[in-house]
Amino acid sequence: MERNLDLIREELLEALKNKNYLKIKDIFNNYAPIDIAESLRDIDEDDADIIKAIIPIFRLVKPSITSEFFSELEPAFQEKIISSLNNEEVASLVHESSNDELADFIEEWPANVVDKVLKNASKDQRNDINKLLGYKDDTAGSIMTTEYITLLDSYTVAQAFQIIRSIGRTAETIYTLFIKNKKFDLVGVLNLDDLVFAEPDQNIIDIANKNFLTVNVNTDQEEVAQLFKRYDLNAIAVLNEDKKLTGIITIDDIVDVIEAENSEDIEAMANVAPLDDSYMNTPVFRLAFKCIPWLIVLMILNIGSIFLQDQFQFLIGTLTAISVFLTTLCDTGGNSGSQSSTLIIRGLATKDFELKDYFKVLWKEFRVALIVSTITSVFTFGFCMFMFGVNIINIPSDFKPIAGGEPEYLVWITLSGTVTISIFVTILLSKIIGASLPFLISKVKLDPAVVTGPLITTIMDLITLTTYFLLLRGSFNIFWGNYF
Amino acid sequence: MERNLDLIREELLEALKNKNYLKIKDIFNNYAPIDIAESLRDIDEDDADIIKAIIPIFRLVKPSITSEFFSELEPAFQEKIISSLNNEEVASLVHESSNDELADFIEEWPANVVDKVLKNASKDQRNDINKLLGYKDDTAGSIMTTEYITLLDSYTVAQAFQIIRSIGRTAETIYTLFIKNKKFDLVGVLNLDDLVFAEPDQNIIDIANKNFLTVNVNTDQEEVAQLFKRYDLNAIAVLNEDKKLTGIITIDDIVDVIEAENSEDIEAMANVAPLDDSYMNTPVFRLAFKCIPWLIVLMILNIGSIFLQDQFQFLIGTLTAISVFLTTLCDTGGNSGSQSSTLIIRGLATKDFELKDYFKVLWKEFRVALIVSTITSVFTFGFCMFMFGVNIINIPSDFKPIAGGEPEYLVWITLSGTVTISIFVTILLSKIIGASLPFLISKVKLDPAVVTGPLITTIMDLITLTTYFLLLRGSFNIFWGNYF
Repeated sequence: MERNLDLIREELLEALKNKNYLKIKDIFNNYAPIDIAESLRDIDEDDADIIKAIIPIFRLVKPSITSEFFSELEPAFQEKIISSLNNEEVASLVHESSNDELADFIEEWPANVVDKVLKNASKDQRNDINKLLGYKDDTAGSIMTTEYITLLDSYTVAQAFQIIRSIGRTAETIYTLFIKNKKFDLVGVLNLDDLVFAEPDQNIIDIANKNFLTVNVNTDQEEVAQLFKRYDLNAIAVLNEDKKLTGIITIDDIVDVIEAENSEDIEAMANVAPLDDSYMNTPVFRLAFKCIPWLIVLMILNIGSIFLQDQFQFLIGTLTAISVFLTTLCDTGGNSGSQSSTLIIRGLATKDFELKDYFKVLWKEFRVALIVSTITSVFTFGFCMFMFGVNIINIPSDFKPIAGGEPEYLVWITLSGTVTISIFVTILLSKIIGASLPFLISKVKLDPAVVTGPLITTIMDLITLTTYFLLLRGSFNIFWGNYF
Repeated sequence: MERNLDLIREELLEALKNKNYLKIKDIFNNYAPIDIAESLRDIDEDDADIIKAIIPIFRLVKPSITSEFFSELEPAFQEKIISSLNNEEVASLVHESSNDELADFIEEWPANVVDKVLKNASKDQRNDINKLLGYKDDTAGSIMTTEYITLLDSYTVAQAFQIIRSIGRTAETIYTLFIKNKKFDLVGVLNLDDLVFAEPDQNIIDIANKNFLTVNVNTDQEEVAQLFKRYDLNAIAVLNEDKKLTGIITIDDIVDVIEAENSEDIEAMANVAPLDDSYMNTPVFRLAFKCIPWLIVLMILNIGSIFLQDQFQFLIGTLTAISVFLTTLCDTGGNSGSQSSTLIIRGLATKDFELKDYFKVLWKEFRVALIVSTITSVFTFGFCMFMFGVNIINIPSDFKPIAGGEPEYLVWITLSGTVTISIFVTILLSKIIGASLPFLISKVKLDPAVVTGPLITTIMDLITLTTYFLLLRGSFNIFWGNYF
């Protein structure tokens, strides 16, 4: 199962150098086009000799295979190849390529390459590509393909097979077939397996699913993916604004959508702006500018907690040891809040629950929060006492109550107790807020994956620090009021 | 496209109450089984009347549909239904259910229900289910199904069609067919579309793909998913230790695997132990105990930074204002490190790059880090000076150098400069460590998604605090050495 891309590259370059055309054909028979294309990933696309050497592939190997190979190359590599092929070769490559892939590439190529491709496409194909280019990113229209099979509702099973056999090879899938009536309305969806199981003289509309799902060209691709997952679809019809069939989306494109949407959510959770492409394909400067904005925004959002800490400087001046808990307290609040918000964001994204289930989720999360905060704060008390006991944290001997003869363990207990109650309050609130924010953010139509993280950290910092400092001031007053 | 589950439930319960059997059949014709099953999600499975009311569904509606409906119900609900059906009805339900789903359910049901199901399964089915139960979670064996079609390599296309038409309905898919020779070795994989395009008297082995991929029963499901994505597969053959075909995995199961693996990664990033089930299906106590361990571990990991802060208490005692930057500095280090580590973990998970590409990735991330740290630290200096200027942060007037007549702006510049240099060092190192840790953790065969987050936060806290405190001590000595 291990693919040895280095070996493929070596074999291929060797064969190309020696003009061993039999061997080249052999390589394309034995390896998947994506593996061959990827084996060339490290090659310098500005190396004219390499490009020149590769061109014969497009003359020797079947266009159905070279088009797949071509589609897996880097855009810069594709450009060079298009420029080196003659018009006839470009036409054959374009003919075999699927329109939705061409539309995607065209957005990356320079104008002269795009011109050469469109000039060599058939009029139909050109129209389809232009149509696909018109849809907004991340909509059903932008991921659909226009190469599908439609059958008339009056056909028999035998007639359907005839059509499929004659034009099926140009379609993206023959596993799902679309049935139109004479008015060009979509009236049924037929799976190839139903066709196989049917009798030749049956009418296709009788065995078709007339209760089928469709999406609109503007439907968000994430919603389309949800439908595929929920109903185990193989393909879905895409309708335009006039409710006419205008394209289809197949499961293999949806697998890519699911991965892309997941990457986007994961990037958002790590406060990285969506990359739009893989890490390797994203240039250094673009990567840096995906990271910088959030780092700066998060720093600015800290203004509140900085101001708050400044207001309580006098407490830290009284006993510097209280400052050593600041980072741990804020970390715990942020961690526990993001545990909850992440579970809720994921639940909403995978449709485990919906916006209307808010109170059910809140009640559940409240009970979870009670358990987590109780157990964690019991631990916290022991943890703090331990750190005092083994001198990881020291109370300066010039702390007025100590200098005045109060026992040190009373200071330990007071500080540990304050930290413990702060942790209890922080975890309880962080889970409730963490469960609520994603609902609120979805309700106002923002992306909860992007907005929740920074918001919850900021809010929790403020709550945690306020609780901690107020409790400290209170316990200082109660226990050692007469010393200050 | 909006599914109104409330409406479905109302219609169904109404029809069941009135024994309107025509209406019940109608509902199962009009709605997807998953929607009907989910509409019953909020119903109390301990309500004997409801269970009794639902039972007729299994007598009225086609078993192929009720088995799908049944498979989407909650395990507790399924239990009650199995217990209420007679043996014959259970047999028909089991016959229509797919073996891999039954094996999954059996792990959730109590022994008496499992007994009733297995007793009513055919001997073949019972063997298959027991086989499936034997595979470890998350392996190809645990997600494969045993219902597939094999054809002999001597068959013609016409013969293949005959077989498919006679036994195809019991298979999980007919879109991918598996060809064996007389010794039961898998010798080819055939897509249904190739069969459709072929001539009836062609030999199937001639049109089959003989260069096919397979996985082993013990292959990790994530690896299987990678193959499906890379090669746009519809189904893959699973071989046992003797290299014989023992099951297949289809694309709809892989879509679920991709979602599950992504959920696991996302949960790990948020420091939640893997849920194994959806949020809604996980009981409160189990959810709490998925959150508690990491909160406590993360707190314990803070020991180093608490100790460090304790060691530098004397600096904070000299100038309490320096403590207000602690949380922001640690946040920034953590954020920038997790930006890098997340991108790298994702890149490794989606095979954008591999372990051997470490130096390529490191060099890229180093350049990204230089840009990010330079720009962010320039911003930091302005940001700090601004906060001093508008009195968000105040320098106490009893700070010795101020009391001794030094200009306050010199303190502003010194502190802002120290914070700025700390941010520069922190971001630079956090990105380099964030890029390296996932490689290291993968290398030692741990899951980078789980281990990286806590490690990077802990390491970065130590580095950030050390840098900050050392720089502070240095600049205090240089500028105001004579005051202390």
